[in-house]
Amino acid sequence: MKLQLALDLLHVEEARSLLADIADVVDIVEIGTPLIMQEGIKAVFVIKQAYPHLEVLADLKIVDAGKLETQIAVDAGADIVTVLGVAHNTTIRNALDQAHQHGRQVMVDLLSVSNVQARARELELMGADYICVHTAFDVQSQQNPLQELKQLKQVLRQTKTAVAGGIKPDTLPEIVTHQPDVIVVGGYVVNHKNKRQAALEIKKYLR
Amino acid sequence: MKLQLALDLLHVEEARSLLADIADVVDIVEIGTPLIMQEGIKAVFVIKQAYPHLEVLADLKIVDAGKLETQIAVDAGADIVTVLGVAHNTTIRNALDQAHQHGRQVMVDLLSVSNVQARARELELMGADYICVHTAFDVQSQQNPLQELKQLKQVLRQTKTAVAGGIKPDTLPEIVTHQPDVIVVGGYVVNHKNKRQAALEIKKYLR
Repeated sequence: MKLQLALDLLHVEEARSLLADIADVVDIVEIGTPLIMQEGIKAVFVIKQAYPHLEVLADLKIVDAGKLETQIAVDAGADIVTVLGVAHNTTIRNALDQAHQHGRQVMVDLLSVSNVQARARELELMGADYICVHTAFDVQSQQNPLQELKQLKQVLRQTKTAVAGGIKPDTLPEIVTHQPDVIVVGGYVVNHKNKRQAALEIKKYLR
Repeated sequence: MKLQLALDLLHVEEARSLLADIADVVDIVEIGTPLIMQEGIKAVFVIKQAYPHLEVLADLKIVDAGKLETQIAVDAGADIVTVLGVAHNTTIRNALDQAHQHGRQVMVDLLSVSNVQARARELELMGADYICVHTAFDVQSQQNPLQELKQLKQVLRQTKTAVAGGIKPDTLPEIVTHQPDVIVVGGYVVNHKNKRQAALEIKKYLR
């Protein structure tokens, strides 16, 4: 089980210095959507250069131009790029083709997908590397991704699973019983006064 | 009827110099998603500084964190920011609140929305400034946005309408009969050998 740290900060230097203290605890560094909006894809490049042994995920949430937008992430050195599950199949296939041609991977984010199981089956057949159930930032006070994770695990045979959306130590024990491949944690670590301690606290639940 | 020029380039300097020749023909300049992915929100800032009389749209396609991500566009000087229609209502409301507090507007992009009419009615009640029917880049060879535009116009009472997705002079005459408020054109102008002539050619269809 891997720990993906989502860096939804606004400045790449803040992200780089935060990682200095906890890079050894993290498996995948997510360059969050707001950080890419603010600084552009150079945020991925800078972090990959600084921490080449870490997997770097570019959270582009591609939904329109699968090939072109995936190439932006590939060129910056991203190991994984995200595509929205609500995107057209053509967009998802174009993103998968482009990523795989360069030895990179695609995580499909099920944000706003209404039928998780039906879509997950389709995405597995398309060859998605990861499928991520994700409770939107704006609704994390009312929802959590546990139910969708259960649904996802029931239908997938080989695609790796990820789970994201307000995950904290108190929600983690039940989530890990469903054996997702990747646990995405952001705010709990990033906003903690002792970020290394917070990341280690999360890490000890991961098997 | 306004002309929105979508700049899906990868470098802001290319966008700035392209506009030098045709800024007077354009009403809204769209800083496209790939350009923001590549260069970050500074692309919006640079273009708004260079062409303050033009409306600048930041095509962020927000779907996760409505307030934070809208604020990124607002801070850069965007007049309009895009949010996906598939986003949670909370995300859309947060984006609208944040934009309106700063005197800016939101265009909701119906990309991947399955029931255009039902969603458009909801978005109008939420106070969306513009609703845009949009055929994804990856499916423009098989589809165009005309049918969705007709559906949209049937249900909206006051929200402004926009139409995007591979629009060219040969598809424009029928589109304009449905009186959208904004026509979004990208590739036809950007890839034309005489961009000013191409923009003027489009403009003459707009009433």
